[in-house]
Amino acid sequence: MKKALILLGCPESPAQTPMAIYITNKLQKMGYEVTTASTPSAMKLIEVGDPEGLYVKNKIDIDSCMDNLDSGTFDLLVGFVHKDAAVSYFVTFNSILNTTSIALIFEKDPEKLEEFENIISESTNAEIVSARAYHNPTPLRVKFDKTLKKMEESGNL
Amino acid sequence: MKKALILLGCPESPAQTPMAIYITNKLQKMGYEVTTASTPSAMKLIEVGDPEGLYVKNKIDIDSCMDNLDSGTFDLLVGFVHKDAAVSYFVTFNSILNTTSIALIFEKDPEKLEEFENIISESTNAEIVSARAYHNPTPLRVKFDKTLKKMEESGNL
Repeated sequence: MKKALILLGCPESPAQTPMAIYITNKLQKMGYEVTTASTPSAMKLIEVGDPEGLYVKNKIDIDSCMDNLDSGTFDLLVGFVHKDAAVSYFVTFNSILNTTSIALIFEKDPEKLEEFENIISESTNAEIVSARAYHNPTPLRVKFDKTLKKMEESGNL
Repeated sequence: MKKALILLGCPESPAQTPMAIYITNKLQKMGYEVTTASTPSAMKLIEVGDPEGLYVKNKIDIDSCMDNLDSGTFDLLVGFVHKDAAVSYFVTFNSILNTTSIALIFEKDPEKLEEFENIISESTNAEIVSARAYHNPTPLRVKFDKTLKKMEESGNL
Protein backbone atom coordinates (compact mmCIF):
# COMPACT_ATOMS: atom_id res chain seq x y z
CA MET A 1 0.00 0.00 0.00
CA LYS A 2 1.30 3.46 -0.88
CA LYS A 3 1.98 5.70 2.08
CA ALA A 4 1.37 9.43 2.38
CA LEU A 5 2.47 11.85 5.09
CA ILE A 6 0.50 15.03 5.80
CA LEU A 7 2.49 17.66 7.63
CA LEU A 8 0.49 20.24 9.58
CA GLY A 9 1.74 23.71 10.43
CA CYS A 10 0.81 25.85 13.40
CA PRO A 11 -2.87 25.74 14.33
CA GLU A 12 -3.75 29.40 13.81
CA SER A 13 -5.34 29.13 10.39
CA PRO A 14 -9.04 28.19 10.49
CA ALA A 15 -8.68 26.41 7.11
CA GLN A 16 -5.94 24.00 8.14
CA THR A 17 -7.86 21.43 10.24
CA PRO A 18 -10.79 21.06 7.79
CA MET A 19 -8.39 20.89 4.81
CA ALA A 20 -6.21 18.28 6.58
CA ILE A 21 -9.28 16.07 7.03
CA TYR A 22 -10.38 16.69 3.45
CA ILE A 23 -6.97 15.69 2.06
CA THR A 24 -6.68 12.65 4.34
CA ASN A 25 -10.05 11.41 3.11
CA LYS A 26 -9.20 12.11 -0.53
CA LEU A 27 -5.84 10.31 -0.41
CA GLN A 28 -7.35 7.35 1.47
CA LYS A 29 -9.94 6.99 -1.27
CA MET A 30 -7.05 6.96 -3.77
CA GLY A 31 -5.56 3.99 -1.90
CA TYR A 32 -2.99 5.72 0.30
CA GLU A 33 -2.37 4.85 3.93
CA VAL A 34 -2.21 8.35 5.40
CA THR A 35 -0.27 9.50 8.47
CA THR A 36 -0.73 13.00 9.89
CA ALA A 37 2.27 14.59 11.60
CA SER A 38 1.85 17.75 13.67
CA THR A 39 2.61 19.61 16.85
CA PRO A 40 0.44 18.68 19.86
CA SER A 41 -1.62 21.89 19.50
CA ALA A 42 -2.53 21.29 15.84
CA MET A 43 -3.31 17.65 16.72
CA LYS A 44 -5.83 18.69 19.39
CA LEU A 45 -7.90 20.41 16.70
CA ILE A 46 -7.83 17.25 14.57
CA GLU A 47 -8.92 15.14 17.54
CA VAL A 48 -11.82 17.46 18.38
CA GLY A 49 -12.78 17.84 14.69
CA ASP A 50 -12.82 14.07 14.06
CA PRO A 51 -13.98 12.83 17.48
CA GLU A 52 -14.67 9.24 16.41
CA GLY A 53 -11.52 8.97 14.27
CA LEU A 54 -13.61 8.32 11.16
CA TYR A 55 -11.19 10.15 8.87
CA VAL A 56 -7.77 10.47 10.50
CA LYS A 57 -6.44 7.01 11.36
CA ASN A 58 -2.72 7.55 11.99
CA LYS A 59 -1.38 10.50 13.97
CA ILE A 60 2.17 11.19 15.03
CA ASP A 61 4.07 13.96 16.77
CA ILE A 62 6.08 15.96 14.24
CA ASP A 63 9.38 15.71 16.11
CA SER A 64 9.19 11.95 16.83
CA CYS A 65 8.20 11.50 13.20
CA MET A 66 11.31 13.34 12.01
CA ASP A 67 13.57 11.22 14.22
CA ASN A 68 12.40 8.05 12.47
CA LEU A 69 12.24 9.41 8.96
CA ASP A 70 14.21 7.91 6.11
CA SER A 71 14.26 8.10 2.34
CA GLY A 72 11.47 5.84 1.14
CA THR A 73 9.40 5.85 4.37
CA PHE A 74 6.60 7.62 2.50
CA ASP A 75 5.62 7.79 -1.18
CA LEU A 76 3.97 11.20 -0.96
CA LEU A 77 4.47 14.24 1.26
CA VAL A 78 1.77 16.92 1.57
CA GLY A 79 2.68 19.88 3.76
CA PHE A 80 0.78 22.92 5.01
CA VAL A 81 3.03 25.95 4.73
CA HIS A 82 1.83 29.20 6.28
CA LYS A 83 4.51 30.24 8.75
CA ASP A 84 8.32 30.37 8.64
CA ALA A 85 8.58 27.33 10.92
CA ALA A 86 6.35 25.32 8.57
CA VAL A 87 8.57 26.28 5.62
CA SER A 88 11.60 24.87 7.42
CA TYR A 89 9.80 21.68 8.42
CA PHE A 90 8.57 21.13 4.87
CA VAL A 91 12.02 21.66 3.33
CA THR A 92 13.59 19.30 5.89
CA PHE A 93 10.98 16.53 5.48
CA ASN A 94 11.17 16.89 1.70
CA SER A 95 14.93 16.57 1.72
CA ILE A 96 14.97 13.49 3.99
CA LEU A 97 12.09 11.68 2.25
CA ASN A 98 13.29 12.51 -1.25
CA THR A 99 9.89 11.69 -2.76
CA THR A 100 6.90 13.26 -4.55
CA SER A 101 5.79 16.30 -2.58
CA ILE A 102 3.04 18.90 -2.57
CA ALA A 103 3.34 22.18 -0.65
CA LEU A 104 0.07 23.88 0.29
CA ILE A 105 1.05 27.49 0.75
CA PHE A 106 -1.58 29.85 2.11
CA GLU A 107 -1.33 33.30 3.57
CA LYS A 108 -3.43 36.47 3.78
CA ASP A 109 -0.41 38.68 3.04
CA PRO A 110 0.56 38.48 -0.67
CA GLU A 111 4.22 39.34 0.05
CA LYS A 112 4.59 36.53 2.57
CA LEU A 113 2.84 34.20 0.16
CA GLU A 114 5.33 35.02 -2.57
CA GLU A 115 8.27 34.70 -0.18
CA PHE A 116 7.14 31.22 0.89
CA GLU A 117 6.56 30.19 -2.75
CA ASN A 118 10.08 31.32 -3.64
CA ILE A 119 11.74 29.45 -0.78
CA ILE A 120 9.83 26.24 -1.52
CA SER A 121 10.51 26.36 -5.27
CA GLU A 122 14.21 27.12 -4.75
CA SER A 123 14.71 24.45 -2.07
CA THR A 124 12.53 21.55 -3.27
CA ASN A 125 11.01 19.92 -6.36
CA ALA A 126 7.57 20.03 -4.73
CA GLU A 127 4.39 20.82 -6.62
CA ILE A 128 3.18 24.15 -5.27
CA VAL A 129 -0.48 24.79 -4.47
CA SER A 130 -0.78 28.34 -3.24
CA ALA A 131 -3.66 30.65 -2.44
CA ARG A 132 -4.33 33.88 -0.62
CA ALA A 133 -6.44 32.18 1.98
CA TYR A 134 -7.21 32.33 5.64
CA HIS A 135 -10.67 31.18 6.61
CA ASN A 136 -12.07 30.36 3.18
CA PRO A 137 -10.83 26.87 2.25
CA THR A 138 -12.28 26.86 -1.27
CA PRO A 139 -9.39 28.39 -3.30
CA LEU A 140 -6.92 25.99 -1.69
CA ARG A 141 -9.25 22.99 -2.06
CA VAL A 142 -9.95 23.65 -5.74
CA LYS A 143 -6.26 24.17 -6.57
CA PHE A 144 -5.26 21.09 -4.59
CA ASP A 145 -7.82 18.94 -6.45
CA LYS A 146 -6.56 20.22 -9.83
CA THR A 147 -2.93 19.59 -8.93
CA LEU A 148 -3.68 16.07 -7.71
CA LYS A 149 -5.60 15.30 -10.90
CA LYS A 150 -2.75 16.63 -13.05
CA MET A 151 -0.19 14.56 -11.12
CA GLU A 152 -2.34 11.44 -11.40
CA GLU A 153 -2.81 11.89 -15.16
CA SER A 154 0.90 12.39 -15.71
CA GLY A 155 1.72 9.26 -13.71
CA ASN A 156 3.43 11.13 -10.88
CA LEU A 157 1.28 9.63 -8.14
CA MET B 1 -36.80 12.73 18.70
CA LYS B 2 -35.37 15.77 20.50
CA LYS B 3 -34.03 18.46 18.22
CA ALA B 4 -30.95 20.63 18.73
CA LEU B 5 -29.78 23.66 16.79
CA ILE B 6 -26.10 24.60 16.64
CA LEU B 7 -25.49 28.20 15.68
CA LEU B 8 -22.08 28.99 14.19
CA GLY B 9 -20.45 32.40 14.28
CA CYS B 10 -18.02 33.89 11.80
CA PRO B 11 -15.41 31.46 10.53
CA GLU B 12 -12.27 33.22 11.79
CA SER B 13 -11.65 31.14 14.88
CA PRO B 14 -9.67 27.93 14.21
CA ALA B 15 -11.49 26.21 17.10
CA GLN B 16 -15.04 26.73 15.81
CA THR B 17 -15.27 24.12 13.01
CA PRO B 18 -13.69 21.27 15.02
CA MET B 19 -15.80 22.14 18.09
CA ALA B 20 -18.99 22.29 16.00
CA ILE B 21 -18.31 18.77 14.74
CA TYR B 22 -17.44 17.58 18.26
CA ILE B 23 -20.69 18.98 19.69
CA THR B 24 -22.79 17.65 16.82
CA ASN B 25 -21.38 14.16 17.39
CA LYS B 26 -21.86 14.39 21.15
CA LEU B 27 -25.48 15.55 20.93
CA GLN B 28 -26.30 12.92 18.29
CA LYS B 29 -24.98 10.23 20.64
CA MET B 30 -27.31 11.66 23.31
CA GLY B 31 -30.24 11.11 20.94
CA TYR B 32 -30.65 14.58 19.47
CA GLU B 33 -31.35 15.28 15.82
CA VAL B 34 -28.87 18.09 15.23
CA THR B 35 -29.14 20.94 12.71
CA THR B 36 -26.24 23.32 12.10
CA ALA B 37 -27.08 26.88 11.08
CA SER B 38 -24.40 29.20 9.78
CA THR B 39 -23.33 31.74 7.20
CA PRO B 40 -22.16 30.29 3.87
CA SER B 41 -18.49 30.92 4.74
CA ALA B 42 -18.60 29.05 8.06
CA MET B 43 -20.50 26.24 6.29
CA LYS B 44 -17.72 25.79 3.72
CA LEU B 45 -15.33 24.89 6.52
CA ILE B 46 -17.79 22.31 7.87
CA GLU B 47 -18.21 20.81 4.40
CA VAL B 48 -14.45 20.55 3.85
CA GLY B 49 -13.84 19.29 7.39
CA ASP B 50 -16.51 16.56 7.14
CA PRO B 51 -16.23 15.70 3.44
CA GLU B 52 -18.36 12.54 3.58
CA GLY B 53 -20.98 14.07 5.89
CA LEU B 54 -20.27 11.45 8.56
CA TYR B 55 -20.91 13.85 11.43
CA VAL B 56 -22.95 16.82 10.24
CA LYS B 57 -26.23 15.62 8.73
CA ASN B 58 -28.43 18.71 8.61
CA LYS B 59 -27.13 22.09 7.50
CA ILE B 60 -29.06 25.28 6.97
CA ASP B 61 -28.31 28.90 6.11
CA ILE B 62 -28.59 31.06 9.21
CA ASP B 63 -30.93 33.64 7.66
CA SER B 64 -33.34 31.11 6.07
CA CYS B 65 -33.30 29.28 9.39
CA MET B 66 -34.33 32.43 11.27
CA ASP B 67 -37.21 33.07 8.85
CA ASN B 68 -38.76 29.70 9.70
CA LEU B 69 -38.05 29.70 13.41
CA ASP B 70 -40.74 29.42 16.00
CA SER B 71 -41.01 28.72 19.70
CA GLY B 72 -40.72 24.95 20.07
CA THR B 73 -38.95 24.26 16.74
CA PHE B 74 -35.91 23.09 18.70
CA ASP B 75 -35.46 21.67 22.21
CA LEU B 76 -31.88 22.87 22.63
CA LEU B 77 -29.89 25.80 21.24
CA VAL B 78 -26.08 25.80 21.30
CA GLY B 79 -24.44 28.94 19.93
CA PHE B 80 -20.85 29.97 19.25
CA VAL B 81 -20.35 33.52 20.44
CA HIS B 82 -17.09 35.24 19.56
CA LYS B 83 -18.04 38.39 17.66
CA ASP B 84 -20.65 41.11 18.16
CA ALA B 85 -22.74 39.75 15.28
CA ALA B 86 -22.79 36.29 16.88
CA VAL B 87 -23.96 37.81 20.18
CA SER B 88 -26.94 39.39 18.40
CA TYR B 89 -27.78 36.19 16.51
CA PHE B 90 -27.65 34.15 19.72
CA VAL B 91 -29.85 36.56 21.66
CA THR B 92 -32.37 36.66 18.79
CA PHE B 93 -32.51 32.87 18.31
CA ASN B 94 -32.75 32.37 22.06
CA SER B 95 -35.62 34.78 22.32
CA ILE B 96 -37.59 33.23 19.41
CA LEU B 97 -36.97 29.60 20.40
CA ASN B 98 -37.60 30.20 24.09
CA THR B 99 -35.92 26.92 25.06
CA THR B 100 -32.86 25.48 26.87
CA SER B 101 -29.76 27.23 25.55
CA ILE B 102 -25.99 27.07 25.87
CA ALA B 103 -23.73 29.94 24.81
CA LEU B 104 -20.13 29.01 23.98
CA ILE B 105 -18.26 32.26 24.46
CA PHE B 106 -14.61 32.35 23.43
CA GLU B 107 -12.23 35.20 22.84
CA LYS B 108 -8.52 35.92 23.18
CA ASP B 109 -9.19 39.35 24.68
CA PRO B 110 -10.39 39.05 28.34
CA GLU B 111 -12.31 42.35 28.18
CA LYS B 112 -14.26 41.28 25.11
CA LEU B 113 -14.90 37.91 26.75
CA GLU B 114 -16.36 39.59 29.84
CA GLU B 115 -18.42 41.98 27.72
CA PHE B 116 -19.95 39.07 25.77
CA GLU B 117 -20.63 37.14 29.01
CA ASN B 118 -22.42 40.16 30.46
CA ILE B 119 -24.61 40.70 27.40
CA ILE B 120 -25.57 37.02 27.20
CA SER B 121 -26.33 36.71 30.93
CA GLU B 122 -28.38 39.93 30.95
CA SER B 123 -30.33 39.09 27.79
CA THR B 124 -30.94 35.33 28.07
CA ASN B 125 -31.31 32.45 30.53
CA ALA B 126 -28.63 30.50 28.67
CA GLU B 127 -26.00 28.38 30.39
CA ILE B 128 -22.68 30.09 29.73
CA VAL B 129 -19.57 28.15 28.74
CA SER B 130 -16.75 30.64 28.34
CA ALA B 131 -13.01 30.39 27.83
CA ARG B 132 -10.12 32.55 26.74
CA ALA B 133 -9.55 30.50 23.63
CA TYR B 134 -8.54 30.93 20.05
CA HIS B 135 -6.80 27.94 18.51
CA ASN B 136 -6.72 25.62 21.52
CA PRO B 137 -10.12 23.91 21.72
CA THR B 138 -9.44 22.07 24.99
CA PRO B 139 -10.62 24.65 27.59
CA LEU B 140 -13.89 25.12 25.72
CA ARG B 141 -14.37 21.39 25.14
CA VAL B 142 -13.77 20.49 28.80
CA LYS B 143 -16.11 23.23 30.08
CA PHE B 144 -18.78 22.29 27.54
CA ASP B 145 -18.64 18.61 28.60
CA LYS B 146 -18.96 19.59 32.29
CA THR B 147 -21.91 21.90 31.62
CA LEU B 148 -23.71 19.27 29.54
CA LYS B 149 -23.19 16.66 32.28
CA LYS B 150 -24.50 19.07 34.94
CA MET B 151 -27.55 19.90 32.82
CA GLU B 152 -28.25 16.20 32.20
CA GLU B 153 -27.98 15.34 35.90
CA SER B 154 -30.30 18.13 36.90
CA GLY B 155 -32.88 17.04 34.33
CA ASN B 156 -32.51 20.17 32.16
CA LEU B 157 -31.77 18.25 28.95
